[in-house]
Amino acid sequence: MKLAVIGVGLIGGSFALALKQAKKVSHVVGVGRGRANLELARERGIIDSMAADASGCDVVLIAAPVAQFGTIFSSLKNFSGLITDGGSTKRDVIAAARGALGRNLSRFVPAHPIAGGEQSGAAAAKADLFNGKRVIVTPLPENEEKAVAGVQDLWRACGAHVSRMSAEEHDAVLSTVSHLPHLVAYAMAHDVAKRENAARLFEIAGAGFRDFTRLASSHPEMWRDICIANRDLVLADMEAFSRKLAHLKKLLQENDAAGLEKLFAEAREARNRWIQSS
Amino acid sequence: MKLAVIGVGLIGGSFALALKQAKKVSHVVGVGRGRANLELARERGIIDSMAADASGCDVVLIAAPVAQFGTIFSSLKNFSGLITDGGSTKRDVIAAARGALGRNLSRFVPAHPIAGGEQSGAAAAKADLFNGKRVIVTPLPENEEKAVAGVQDLWRACGAHVSRMSAEEHDAVLSTVSHLPHLVAYAMAHDVAKRENAARLFEIAGAGFRDFTRLASSHPEMWRDICIANRDLVLADMEAFSRKLAHLKKLLQENDAAGLEKLFAEAREARNRWIQSS
Repeated sequence: MKLAVIGVGLIGGSFALALKQAKKVSHVVGVGRGRANLELARERGIIDSMAADASGCDVVLIAAPVAQFGTIFSSLKNFSGLITDGGSTKRDVIAAARGALGRNLSRFVPAHPIAGGEQSGAAAAKADLFNGKRVIVTPLPENEEKAVAGVQDLWRACGAHVSRMSAEEHDAVLSTVSHLPHLVAYAMAHDVAKRENAARLFEIAGAGFRDFTRLASSHPEMWRDICIANRDLVLADMEAFSRKLAHLKKLLQENDAAGLEKLFAEAREARNRWIQSS
Repeated sequence: MKLAVIGVGLIGGSFALALKQAKKVSHVVGVGRGRANLELARERGIIDSMAADASGCDVVLIAAPVAQFGTIFSSLKNFSGLITDGGSTKRDVIAAARGALGRNLSRFVPAHPIAGGEQSGAAAAKADLFNGKRVIVTPLPENEEKAVAGVQDLWRACGAHVSRMSAEEHDAVLSTVSHLPHLVAYAMAHDVAKRENAARLFEIAGAGFRDFTRLASSHPEMWRDICIANRDLVLADMEAFSRKLAHLKKLLQENDAAGLEKLFAEAREARNRWIQSS
């Protein structure tokens, strides 16, 4: 099987390495705009050749920035293999696919591997990135079931657990457990950084603050695009979270010790139950 | 040197173990209300004997819940040694000391070791808890310089870095980098736990959400007391943070991609600079 990876970064490169290791693919074609990155990918054995597009391959993974998806889908209108992607939001990716893929829409099975982190580029790719991680697949009504099964098999071959849900549910769930926390972490780090006593604050901040703001070290452009792509749901989640914060503030203003303790205990219990079961 | 520890938990027990290891104290007296915990502390070699109060000792560390400090200070009115504490807030502790310690105020040097975590009790105590950690000492105008030096020496003997600041600055700084993040983490975990789709949300939440909400697994009673003790400053910080969040929401509402990216990049840069320098 011949795989094309469009965007040989952390996600794309790791997908190629994992499928090579699982002996699912024999040849990987790298497609991308960064020549130096592609050279590095070839040196590291991630890709075997470079090309301007995916033609002649059996499968293509689109792992480029989401802003480029429209152009990429247009280039795949006559592609005859399976198509999947690694985008962090799904409704916008599907809209782009509907606008550009034509009849090939039936073989595009959208996916979102919940892996990654603060590193990027072919230099960061590794064969075990998806091992034990979750990949959400959001099949389209137009999909052939064979295509869905094929794409799920590939992600499973990478060691991932595959969940299926609609693109709408995916975007709503990710807004709450990922996009909102990112925004809040960015807001907290920015709040502290812009205070008059910022130097003193960072001097005293400890491990709790470090973990709490870790998400604020994520890639600014990528998170700008995710927030804008998922804008309606993220705004609704910011609204819900602001209400929760206002409620907490009110409890404190009213010196409601019992109310504060109850909320803290409920939050702790829910989190601990989750940690223990996961 | 004979040390009394009032409240032989994570902080008090670790202080005793560290000073024994540093050969600064030869005998530790445990004072506390939990008999089973004191027995465990003796079995673990943290304390050598138990007593109703600190009399006859050269140094006392108060590491009980802050709500008990008034009574404890009253019992130390005629104590002739050095007094320090491990309370997480300092203005309230000092007010309690002023109300109850009498002329012994000159030998009470308030301290806050920034260590600890989710575990508690003598079972969790360990000799290296303070090693490389920061201890903030907030001396009083009434303190003899000898007492301040003596208390700082003890915390340094535990391996801690000692910073000196006023109780007011301590409480303001901790409100921003510790109390506020705790409240926000509790709010986030509670928000998710109370959603209709909570089970799905926790199923999909990953490592980012886990780190982001780690502070929400902290002790509810302890954090209730800290928030209430530091109420004025915590409320001001919640206000400032809510304004930052509202600003971020406005950028998203207005589809201001450049503004979002700028804020994210500034937050990331400040945090990365801090991580690299610490």
